[in-house]
Amino acid sequence: MQAVDFNSDMGESFGPWTIGDGVDNELMGFISSANIATGFHAGDPGTMRRTIEQARLRGVAIGAHPGFRDLVGFGRRHINAPAQELVDDMLYQLGALRELARVQGLKLQHIKPHGALYMHLARDEEAARLLVENLQKLEPELLLYCMPGSVICRIAQELGQPVIREFYADRDYDLSGSIVFTRRVRVLDPHEVAAKVLRACQQGLVRTVEGEDLAIEFDSICLHSDTPGALDLVEATRAALDLAGIQVRAPR
Amino acid sequence: MQAVDFNSDMGESFGPWTIGDGVDNELMGFISSANIATGFHAGDPGTMRRTIEQARLRGVAIGAHPGFRDLVGFGRRHINAPAQELVDDMLYQLGALRELARVQGLKLQHIKPHGALYMHLARDEEAARLLVENLQKLEPELLLYCMPGSVICRIAQELGQPVIREFYADRDYDLSGSIVFTRRVRVLDPHEVAAKVLRACQQGLVRTVEGEDLAIEFDSICLHSDTPGALDLVEATRAALDLAGIQVRAPR
Amino acid sequence: MQAVDFNSDMGESFGPWTIGDGVDNELMGFISSANIATGFHAGDPGTMRRTIEQARLRGVAIGAHPGFRDLVGFGRRHINAPAQELVDDMLYQLGALRELARVQGLKLQHIKPHGALYMHLARDEEAARLLVENLQKLEPELLLYCMPGSVICRIAQELGQPVIREFYADRDYDLSGSIVFTRRVRVLDPHEVAAKVLRACQQGLVRTVEGEDLAIEFDSICLHSDTPGALDLVEATRAALDLAGIQVRAPR
Amino acid sequence: MQAVDFNSDMGESFGPWTIGDGVDNELMGFISSANIATGFHAGDPGTMRRTIEQARLRGVAIGAHPGFRDLVGFGRRHINAPAQELVDDMLYQLGALRELARVQGLKLQHIKPHGALYMHLARDEEAARLLVENLQKLEPELLLYCMPGSVICRIAQELGQPVIREFYADRDYDLSGSIVFTRRVRVLDPHEVAAKVLRACQQGLVRTVEGEDLAIEFDSICLHSDTPGALDLVEATRAALDLAGIQVRAPR
Repeated sequence: MQAVDFNSDMGESFGPWTIGDGVDNELMGFISSANIATGFHAGDPGTMRRTIEQARLRGVAIGAHPGFRDLVGFGRRHINAPAQELVDDMLYQLGALRELARVQGLKLQHIKPHGALYMHLARDEEAARLLVENLQKLEPELLLYCMPGSVICRIAQELGQPVIREFYADRDYDLSGSIVFTRRVRVLDPHEVAAKVLRACQQGLVRTVEGEDLAIEFDSICLHSDTPGALDLVEATRAALDLAGIQVRAPR
Repeated sequence: MQAVDFNSDMGESFGPWTIGDGVDNELMGFISSANIATGFHAGDPGTMRRTIEQARLRGVAIGAHPGFRDLVGFGRRHINAPAQELVDDMLYQLGALRELARVQGLKLQHIKPHGALYMHLARDEEAARLLVENLQKLEPELLLYCMPGSVICRIAQELGQPVIREFYADRDYDLSGSIVFTRRVRVLDPHEVAAKVLRACQQGLVRTVEGEDLAIEFDSICLHSDTPGALDLVEATRAALDLAGIQVRAPR
Repeated sequence: MQAVDFNSDMGESFGPWTIGDGVDNELMGFISSANIATGFHAGDPGTMRRTIEQARLRGVAIGAHPGFRDLVGFGRRHINAPAQELVDDMLYQLGALRELARVQGLKLQHIKPHGALYMHLARDEEAARLLVENLQKLEPELLLYCMPGSVICRIAQELGQPVIREFYADRDYDLSGSIVFTRRVRVLDPHEVAAKVLRACQQGLVRTVEGEDLAIEFDSICLHSDTPGALDLVEATRAALDLAGIQVRAPR
Repeated sequence: MQAVDFNSDMGESFGPWTIGDGVDNELMGFISSANIATGFHAGDPGTMRRTIEQARLRGVAIGAHPGFRDLVGFGRRHINAPAQELVDDMLYQLGALRELARVQGLKLQHIKPHGALYMHLARDEEAARLLVENLQKLEPELLLYCMPGSVICRIAQELGQPVIREFYADRDYDLSGSIVFTRRVRVLDPHEVAAKVLRACQQGLVRTVEGEDLAIEFDSICLHSDTPGALDLVEATRAALDLAGIQVRAPR
């Protein structure tokens, strides 16, 4: 791998509240694609404008990061809603960000659903298909960030919507290729994370929680901005990639 | 006057709740331009989609109807917010509607702020100017519905944003040309409203609360869908216009 | 059965929007217990005050009707949240109503969770137990409205919280004793509903969707105010009960 | 002055977001009264429960801190609403906190409106009177925190609701006795703040922005938890009071 995308969730503040110690501006210096929260799980129009501005100044590509309508739960709680309702919600959010980007002269590169909605689309055939069909009508070249092997990834490939498959730098994998959600006891070590990412890029392998290696393919590294110590993790990972001669750049 | 636009607020339901006895679908048969609520004072993404669909089927032109972020107050309560914040909120809402229209193959014809926000922009130089400047960047041909003689009307004309000046069929005027907000005792009579509109179209005159005639100029008749008996008022007005040979058609 | 409680959900308007054709005031004349929406799925503080006032004038007992935090979904969508979070939400809503009742000199008779939260507590051991334990600390005599045979009904009986078991006048039963959720094709007939309730009261039987009789026990008849034609259904049911000499009165 | 109350706003987090670097727990060690946000401008039921628990463990008295319904604006934007609507909103919030306190065995000591609502009640006769009248009905001994000389302070004294007059440690005064809102250039110095508070307690004087001394009377020191460096300011102030032998204790 000679080049890779590096994405992170940005603009997840809301009104008076910042998240991740407000390090968005600094994180922007190390990544190539920003997933900007669009108001339903986090992000308000002012925060969106400022986040777009930061991305523009740093040359970072931007995409919409729509979530369930659930501020208090930060879009991490599954809400049992029909596919059409969820797609309406996502298009609403997508358009909101697109307008705020357009007034600054920027186009959207991608869409990446957030949290429980991301997981829902990874599994739910009906919602995933309806979203992709709508994207095909709206913008068949908009990149869709997703989990390799997920339902939405397969459907997008089937219908011709281009996908960006993610590797999760701050999550553990099991042998099935799934991400393991554990209440983590310890804070992640920047060097370990950087080494894990580098190995994934260079050898296409990741060590699972079972202690064996798993072969993986991906187009983008994802590191969550609200992971404790995110800035250190992102900085170390970027440094390792630079040192190894792997270029960090947006897919487009 | 040989032709005139006829606009009404549409899609002001929210989740389980409908407004105006849910007569939106019927009202659509009589008007030429629909101001579609965009989620902050009313309207949710599903309602927006269905309202756009109705407008499309009826050949009614559509525009964004952004309001203050205030569901419980229906955007009728003034909120003391900086101009930039309000403009961010309006662009967010504008883009949300634009996306939901685009997926149905429709373009937006106009923008018309709602309720207390409409009144704020009619008076506040800073917010009005910032909005128009942003519209100039985004879409210098988007029609801006406004009150004749208002601050935003003057600024739009100054900066080159095309305006549509409204005549309010269901509001009283005073001699200053302002709308009089009275807690109305009686329900409006459809024949009186129709006659008032017809006179305004044909003679450019309206009888004020002081009992004298006022000269008025306008491009569109506005009748609010939540005025009690709105459907009867709209129907009678449309019939009177048809009978008089005044064509009802969207500005564009 | 010589007397029975008759309950309905009240105050499910929000801001400018009313529900069920705004017939709450009329419905109050026929029921004995009102479940008042407490702001999370419907109901705002002003609506709560006015609904309490109506109940006070009509001598109707009142209770809290807390729901999921989901206005747009009207509390009908399940949200995947930890038990503690849901109980915090319910106590918050319970206290809000209690205060607004107290200032009018009224006490709360009961609590009845709404929609998807009602169903969740009917099945989820952990959330049901935590709620009942908290009620035991707060007010061990507060009546808990629930579905006969549900998890929360059993736990309340076990821990000593008094329950009011409901019979659903506007829902179909199957042989397991569960309510059948069908997208109903036809509007309910007031005479059929009244006859069904009367038979349940007098013989303790209900005809299931399978066409056989099911024995049932209950303390309160529930008829939802947003069922189409609710006012006619409630009126006919009340008339039938009166005629049969079955007194409609609140449990307390 | 041998004893004084020391109050601060607590629990102003919301869902995933914390405020003031999440120092609430530490601040609790230095104050005697906590104004707990009640969900409309900040605070969710879970945060409220945890904040009450902290206060209970530290022996800090608690009160309700209701605000305008405006999360994104943090209750700092004035909303133009009728008095009855605002009072309904405040009672709703008051009851919500009271219930969550009651389940932990705590009573509320006081109420202190937040931000723009605090300022509104300091000036608006109708809203202030309606609130105090309602408090008289609900709990005539509930302490009302307010600005000395404000409209609500006068009305409360007139109607017999006990008031706690505040001295603002982190705000500047002018000669009229009003607080001066300036966009502060520099972070406050803990020693200066402590010295200012001590002088106010011992001599009843504060140096105004005009450079002259103003005589002041008060019952409680207020220091906002979201003032930058709040923890240092509170700690230094408390140390100075302790050293001077002025006891920090809740009014009740």
